[in-house]
Amino acid sequence: MGLPMASHLLAAGYQISVFNRTRSRAEPLLEQGAVWAESAAAAADGADVAISMVGYPDDVRATHLGEAGTLAAAYPPQLLVDMTTSRPSLAVHIAREAKRRGVGSLDAPVSGGDVGARNATLSIMVGGVEEHFQRAQQLFEVLGKSVVYQGEAGMGQHTKMVNQVLIATNMIGVCEGLLYARKAGLDPLKVIESVGGGAAGSWSINNLAPRMLRRDFEPGFYVEHFIKDLSIALDEASRMSLALPGLALARQLYEAVNAHGHGRAGTQALLLALEQLNALQLSSD
Amino acid sequence: MGLPMASHLLAAGYQISVFNRTRSRAEPLLEQGAVWAESAAAAADGADVAISMVGYPDDVRATHLGEAGTLAAAYPPQLLVDMTTSRPSLAVHIAREAKRRGVGSLDAPVSGGDVGARNATLSIMVGGVEEHFQRAQQLFEVLGKSVVYQGEAGMGQHTKMVNQVLIATNMIGVCEGLLYARKAGLDPLKVIESVGGGAAGSWSINNLAPRMLRRDFEPGFYVEHFIKDLSIALDEASRMSLALPGLALARQLYEAVNAHGHGRAGTQALLLALEQLNALQLSSD
Repeated sequence: MGLPMASHLLAAGYQISVFNRTRSRAEPLLEQGAVWAESAAAAADGADVAISMVGYPDDVRATHLGEAGTLAAAYPPQLLVDMTTSRPSLAVHIAREAKRRGVGSLDAPVSGGDVGARNATLSIMVGGVEEHFQRAQQLFEVLGKSVVYQGEAGMGQHTKMVNQVLIATNMIGVCEGLLYARKAGLDPLKVIESVGGGAAGSWSINNLAPRMLRRDFEPGFYVEHFIKDLSIALDEASRMSLALPGLALARQLYEAVNAHGHGRAGTQALLLALEQLNALQLSSD
Repeated sequence: MGLPMASHLLAAGYQISVFNRTRSRAEPLLEQGAVWAESAAAAADGADVAISMVGYPDDVRATHLGEAGTLAAAYPPQLLVDMTTSRPSLAVHIAREAKRRGVGSLDAPVSGGDVGARNATLSIMVGGVEEHFQRAQQLFEVLGKSVVYQGEAGMGQHTKMVNQVLIATNMIGVCEGLLYARKAGLDPLKVIESVGGGAAGSWSINNLAPRMLRRDFEPGFYVEHFIKDLSIALDEASRMSLALPGLALARQLYEAVNAHGHGRAGTQALLLALEQLNALQLSSD
């Protein structure tokens, strides 16, 4: 997702130094005028804002706090911005380390997926010091259509966790509803026509269910990344002594999807776990 | 819901005989020109179409198959239409009994609640013989904005069950997401602003979550009626050898809402069960 996002910033006139583990994947940006850097630190060196969009919390940690991380090259009034979906507690930790160096930091995870990144229609959920948010707001508005300041460091990540809780639990209902329809002999597309516009309506029933029916499990968002997010959400909930039985069930079912080798399928592949459970297939390939 | 629905039909020029267990509740219709009948049979006597909107499957059975039920007065080419949310197997049974008398029947449950009934914006899901559907289509279009023929007898009810599966499971996610937001120290309304328009979006997060935050548990739809529906859906799923773990969890949580004395609250009162579970309150009264 970093690629189209950086591309939008270049198109908006920002100068960008870019680092990626696989240089070839940054080529389109270099052609667009970005400058190659040999490390996160080198990319951040001299920049007003250092933005990361990586995979897992460990990557976030390495990118900002590692030996060749951004903080190694940071000086005031630089701003570190992590747009990866990552641990709220790590965002708090980075903010603390950054502050010790006189540097600002924001956690600003996004929803909207590949399509949102390409069309600059992301929803961006921001945590950190409000003044730092205001400094970065213009950048965010190049990348997304909804930019909301959610509170102190970590609150952007917590908001993204709520987003994932909602998606995960609703996805169980979408899959179960489709399997019920199939078993009852209904035409699932006609069912969606009846139920998708009312109180049962959701983005997932209207957008992902038709893909499930076509057996299109191409990723908008990887199952394995979703499991990472659900694990973070459950860890955080446990830390806060919060029981979330629906989320726990969703996570178990997603683990089953992964166990069947579909970690690189899209989140709508939850259907495969519920099909396996019921020795049933929703529709033919 | 029968009251506003019958009122729309009167306003559209249809002549109506009406029966209700409590006559006083039918008064507004009598003032509008409806004729009082002393039983379902008397109301149906001589009518082209006999429509029921009652509470539970037992009421549906009594209304159509009981001693003073519609079928006792039915003659071809009358059409019996049940718009209650009820058992698919009962709809099949009524269709069979009606057919033996040369009479048609449709199951045509609705979604959209009180508001949909008042505004004639219901979604109507219809099962039965397609030719009978065509005969009743004009009536349905007075009552709803989405009228979809779903297949043979019982298929309207099955479609409504899918609707309830979707609502119930998603409601778990909505409640858990709000409680997570609360525990994390977020402003839930700002969170909804970030997540309600994207892949996590649903009718419930955008319409019911704000009510939960105001502790407005007024019924659009009663918990006790919802439990009836979820029980029917689980019974039917079991009959079809279909495991629906998300729906089973939802039903258990709704039983807990009922156990706490909130059977006459609205479905958004699921929050109360998850608050109890966590010894937590989302917001003050």
